[in-house]
Amino acid sequence: MKVLDYGSIELIETWGSDERIIEAARMSTGKGFNGWGTPYHAVGCPNQGDKIVAKCPECGQGLGDEKLLAYLWNNKHHTPFEMAGLVIEVKAPIFVFREWHRHRTQSYNEMSARYTPLPDENYIPSVERLMMQGGANKQAQSAGAVLTKEDAERFREGLRIAYWHARETYEWAISHGIPKELARLPVPVARYSRMRASANLRNWLQFLTLRMDPAAQWEIRQYANAVADLVCENFPRTYQLFDQTRVK
Amino acid sequence: MKVLDYGSIELIETWGSDERIIEAARMSTGKGFNGWGTPYHAVGCPNQGDKIVAKCPECGQGLGDEKLLAYLWNNKHHTPFEMAGLVIEVKAPIFVFREWHRHRTQSYNEMSARYTPLPDENYIPSVERLMMQGGANKQAQSAGAVLTKEDAERFREGLRIAYWHARETYEWAISHGIPKELARLPVPVARYSRMRASANLRNWLQFLTLRMDPAAQWEIRQYANAVADLVCENFPRTYQLFDQTRVK
Amino acid sequence: MKVLDYGSIELIETWGSDERIIEAARMSTGKGFNGWGTPYHAVGCPNQGDKIVAKCPECGQGLGDEKLLAYLWNNKHHTPFEMAGLVIEVKAPIFVFREWHRHRTQSYNEMSARYTPLPDENYIPSVERLMMQGGANKQAQSAGAVLTKEDAERFREGLRIAYWHARETYEWAISHGIPKELARLPVPVARYSRMRASANLRNWLQFLTLRMDPAAQWEIRQYANAVADLVCENFPRTYQLFDQTRVK
Amino acid sequence: MKVLDYGSIELIETWGSDERIIEAARMSTGKGFNGWGTPYHAVGCPNQGDKIVAKCPECGQGLGDEKLLAYLWNNKHHTPFEMAGLVIEVKAPIFVFREWHRHRTQSYNEMSARYTPLPDENYIPSVERLMMQGGANKQAQSAGAVLTKEDAERFREGLRIAYWHARETYEWAISHGIPKELARLPVPVARYSRMRASANLRNWLQFLTLRMDPAAQWEIRQYANAVADLVCENFPRTYQLFDQTRVK
Repeated sequence: MKVLDYGSIELIETWGSDERIIEAARMSTGKGFNGWGTPYHAVGCPNQGDKIVAKCPECGQGLGDEKLLAYLWNNKHHTPFEMAGLVIEVKAPIFVFREWHRHRTQSYNEMSARYTPLPDENYIPSVERLMMQGGANKQAQSAGAVLTKEDAERFREGLRIAYWHARETYEWAISHGIPKELARLPVPVARYSRMRASANLRNWLQFLTLRMDPAAQWEIRQYANAVADLVCENFPRTYQLFDQTRVK
Repeated sequence: MKVLDYGSIELIETWGSDERIIEAARMSTGKGFNGWGTPYHAVGCPNQGDKIVAKCPECGQGLGDEKLLAYLWNNKHHTPFEMAGLVIEVKAPIFVFREWHRHRTQSYNEMSARYTPLPDENYIPSVERLMMQGGANKQAQSAGAVLTKEDAERFREGLRIAYWHARETYEWAISHGIPKELARLPVPVARYSRMRASANLRNWLQFLTLRMDPAAQWEIRQYANAVADLVCENFPRTYQLFDQTRVK
Repeated sequence: MKVLDYGSIELIETWGSDERIIEAARMSTGKGFNGWGTPYHAVGCPNQGDKIVAKCPECGQGLGDEKLLAYLWNNKHHTPFEMAGLVIEVKAPIFVFREWHRHRTQSYNEMSARYTPLPDENYIPSVERLMMQGGANKQAQSAGAVLTKEDAERFREGLRIAYWHARETYEWAISHGIPKELARLPVPVARYSRMRASANLRNWLQFLTLRMDPAAQWEIRQYANAVADLVCENFPRTYQLFDQTRVK
Repeated sequence: MKVLDYGSIELIETWGSDERIIEAARMSTGKGFNGWGTPYHAVGCPNQGDKIVAKCPECGQGLGDEKLLAYLWNNKHHTPFEMAGLVIEVKAPIFVFREWHRHRTQSYNEMSARYTPLPDENYIPSVERLMMQGGANKQAQSAGAVLTKEDAERFREGLRIAYWHARETYEWAISHGIPKELARLPVPVARYSRMRASANLRNWLQFLTLRMDPAAQWEIRQYANAVADLVCENFPRTYQLFDQTRVK
């Protein structure tokens, strides 16, 4: 799944399922999964324009263990959601990873500029993105001046030059014997890096709560949306509950 | 405490003490702290050239609850060391923070370039540091060329220019209405940022184990050494045990 | 602070303060603590019948950094609350510790029946407590029969006998060479044990959210109330915000 | 898998694999899994009497990515081992769960005596187990008396009576209207309960390090051995490395 200009999100693996969450919750009373009420013949992911249904659109009935799942979510009994999870591979700019790594419950393995040159790909926002002020967190906005389309274009050109400059310095350093771990000093926070990230479903949903929020930076929101699609495809009933209660 | 060219480590607060660790460990048998055998009139921190003594240098005797403390440490009964801790304030380059934040058991509050311009200070390694190849991790070294003193000086000049360029792009962007959260894109990973970090003593010692190790990058080792001094001053008997068993 | 028939909560140590939380939050913009608007001459803890005031009751004005503190709490910017914390000592029945230890972000050191006999103190609920059905979680209630005062008294007597029996078996075992770690098998979950527990303020408030909740078992709620008093005395402005938003 | 008299360990699910661990580790240099050197036609689990081989017993050669895996393990680069894991279901006595739950990095969902009567099954150690003094931790042993076979049998009889007594008190309470959450007070710590537990492989190996250790109580060691078998079957190359370095 492509994200931003050079980025991506790729699913490596999932474990657990909506059913497993019910089984884990039923440990407290010694019972297991009983069955869903709704045949899932109309299920989809809202981020992809589909509609998730809680009831069968044909017979109008529904709700077997969907009821318990909704009770768990709505009453913040979150531990059963730790019994499922996802491992993904992410390619994103360093400034996005810097925000991402604040989520201390995830496991990370990232490419290291100390050991290998990061690929020379750097994020350049589109003119439309640069003009987008309203959606952003107020504190993150510009200092007052009104941005014109021409200046947005000029900034993109300025970035290209700054990135080129950083690259030149890096390559000169490598070819003249500067240690890799120091040659990287001029690398901009716009530089793309790669990582694997793993977390249980409870923690991924907490990540989505914070990073799909309108106050989150637009760039990390694009990654969160892509993660949300993976969650929805693999845990559709849980995602539906999450989607109904999150801030939009 | 000054670290690198513009960085620092400052102690904000500690909690607990070597005595508290003993008290917590004695919970298992319902007893408390009995007293140290050694009057601490000759204690110091090895990083500062002082000598920590396990026995009283005058009477040659010692070892009250030092014995239990040593037993805990040497047998990896680490939970009592969670009953003490430190809060510090750190100023360091972004590439150091990137390594630091992998320690997921610490609590962080960092300055954000999304909301406020980071001070225009960027790390420039000294010529001596650049020439230092042996101490570094092999993978982190240069690609083969032998670095001369002249080229080390040239790299420092190249960094100054690259940093200046990044700064120009940033300031032009701010004054032309680019959102702060995007104006920061060309900021190099050498840029200094600030944070508060808090952790319990067990987790700080784990941090020191990894970051005082000769395989860690020289720059983060300078920060780890400064943290070690704070640990030593506030938890001298625990630090002594740590210092005896760590890889040097 | 006495809790239940033989239990207690004792403060060992705190670190940080309401001011430190503000300082940590202001790291993001590079500023510090500015000062409270309200001179705290009317502050108290609601659990103790006092009233916490947000404004000076004399001049009617207020709100310096109280405003930022409220913003942080109400918008779930919880990381600055990790920069403070408490260490306490608790004496409580094993079934209370079983619930308590589900809070995996706390640090624990507990007395161990493997190494030392737990004191022969066992929880016996009062008649009033036994008659209290309404407040409890529905699933936790009795199976249908209506409890009389006489039967409540009889149950108390039955407990005394069961505890005595468990004790006899234990002591016989110890005196006949059964290993301590097995002699403990008949010990009831009503037996009192002791521990030290440490956590940062964010995690203590999460503990209080779950354990002061009317759906929590009455016994652990008494402990949570005692912890709440300690939080209130040491972090009065933060506690006030917590108290306003919790479920009662 | 049966454990003790009424207990069990059952595998619910795994994620990841030895290969995935290599892939995650290679993120740092941007490369992936290259392939094992050894065709695994002689692999087994040492706990089950099998032999794990590092080299092909036919051709005498081996070591493809086994070499990197060993490097990671032996140099404590543990984060790639977080990219795999297991979910299991456990039936064990409460005193075993009390030790187990100190592992705060696992996720748990346990049966609750607050909501449902725990099955009336209680652990009774065999005479052989009771006579076993040498293997146990010294502090956990008996106070001095030498245990005879007859007294071991008598203790077993004493346990049966104590358990019966606790049960009687419980059932009388339930049938007379005592809330379930209080009727459980006389339940002994020998009572069996059930739970699901989930953790990543790094944390399971840490659990095994502590709980397969000869100083751990014999009962939890039987559970740890059963978990070890599951780890070995699903992550044979990683288990081999663990097994070579653990204390036996």
